Amino acid sequence: MRAEQMLATHPHVKGAVNTALARCVEACFDCAQVCASCADACLGEEQVAQLVQCVRLNMDCADVCLTTGLIATRRSGGDVPLIEAQLRACQLACARCAAECERHAQMHEHCAICAAACRDCERACEAAIASLADSQTPAH
Amino acid sequence: MRAEQMLATHPHVKGAVNTALARCVEACFDCAQVCASCADACLGEEQVAQLVQCVRLNMDCADVCLTTGLIATRRSGGDVPLIEAQLRACQLACARCAAECERHAQMHEHCAICAAACRDCERACEAAIASLADSQTPAH
Amino acid sequence: MRAEQMLATHPHVKGAVNTALARCVEACFDCAQVCASCADACLGEEQVAQLVQCVRLNMDCADVCLTTGLIATRRSGGDVPLIEAQLRACQLACARCAAECERHAQMHEHCAICAAACRDCERACEAAIASLADSQTPAH
Amino acid sequence: MRAEQMLATHPHVKGAVNTALARCVEACFDCAQVCASCADACLGEEQVAQLVQCVRLNMDCADVCLTTGLIATRRSGGDVPLIEAQLRACQLACARCAAECERHAQMHEHCAICAAACRDCERACEAAIASLADSQTPAH
Repeated sequence: MRAEQMLATHPHVKGAVNTALARCVEACFDCAQVCASCADACLGEEQVAQLVQCVRLNMDCADVCLTTGLIATRRSGGDVPLIEAQLRACQLACARCAAECERHAQMHEHCAICAAACRDCERACEAAIASLADSQTPAH
Repeated sequence: MRAEQMLATHPHVKGAVNTALARCVEACFDCAQVCASCADACLGEEQVAQLVQCVRLNMDCADVCLTTGLIATRRSGGDVPLIEAQLRACQLACARCAAECERHAQMHEHCAICAAACRDCERACEAAIASLADSQTPAH
Repeated sequence: MRAEQMLATHPHVKGAVNTALARCVEACFDCAQVCASCADACLGEEQVAQLVQCVRLNMDCADVCLTTGLIATRRSGGDVPLIEAQLRACQLACARCAAECERHAQMHEHCAICAAACRDCERACEAAIASLADSQTPAH
Repeated sequence: MRAEQMLATHPHVKGAVNTALARCVEACFDCAQVCASCADACLGEEQVAQLVQCVRLNMDCADVCLTTGLIATRRSGGDVPLIEAQLRACQLACARCAAECERHAQMHEHCAICAAACRDCERACEAAIASLADSQTPAH
């Protein structure tokens, strides 16, 4: 992805990219795709009845990650509390989906990959939240 | 919309719909459509340069409302903290978008309607959060 | 929903709303919510293994309907072929999801309601496509 | 992104990934992020009034790409006409957005990068459509 390259061209950013936020954007889009893929793979497993909650959390996490990736891309014109609230919802969605996928990770490789993507995105959200708190020009 | 009618047919719900959550789902989809429409109408105004932050918050609010409407529809298999975090992000996105649209409401009717839709959705999120706190079987 | 009311306030529309397109917008958002709800209800049924394709088409139809509702709301600045291509994809997604839900409609009320919402949206897409072909100022 | 890696773990795919479709998934998510970023950058430019159609097509392209990326990820349980219709809408949305961004590419670097991402995704959609036509087990 080219999220960081794009953010650097923004007229309000002028090269001073918030790297933690840019990485979070990429993690969100990656995690959304992986979660959507894991949901569909779970639906294809013979023991789908045991994977129902995994499918649900995959779908929730995919939706929350996409919206968070879009919000962090636009940075809400600098409205930090709004970005932060969405990042916190995303951090939680990733943590819950990761915990569920980890339960099936030895049985299903898609759940193992998905758990890793969710943990990456969870950490990326945490780092982005910290970067907003540290920054003087917080949403750039 | 038929959100409440649909939720009543869910095998886990069996008729005992959380009405506040069902209303919140409908408010979220309504607000998302109105915000997307307001963004496009603002882009069509001659003084678009003065409406840039309105367009941004419209887009943020539309995305957050859609995801919140989907999460509240699925109720995350009963994962209340996850639903609540997304509802809080949505309540804030609606409040910010409403405040911005209210500044242009006398000049632009689309902003007046959008501000009203955002305030409705903000209140619906608040009521849904309260209903989750009150409930024994909170996410149904 | 207030899609038609909002579209009437657009500076390019000036009251001359394309009613078929406005109805299609509302049908798309309604169908998206119903499909997301049906997917989750199917996941809650004991015989989920027999409903896997229904869940998949529900998810596809929900995503396609949301994007179509947004495209039809913005009318792409009047780019009719773009709107039409998305409306055609939506018409097909609704037809496929309806056909699958109709197979389970006697067993599951959520599938019966979902099939009806999909057929409504399929027809609304068809009428919107026809309205674009008829119109001189086609995307308004 | 890890779209191809994930698709390879799907129980219906068993390692025989449709590489063109996997590349298309990644191109769709990349293009969606870039378009959302370009829309926001255009809104930050002083001459925003001249970039209004660019913002609109950016938003349309972002929404269409996200839905197409999700549909191609799930492959609709093998429903090729449905995948193909959405790929065609995406190919067109990318072509229109690229053509608009190319008009501003010398003035605005974000439009230059966005035009390149849109052309990449347009070609990826075309290749994915061709792969579906060629394939015996088309949607895998």
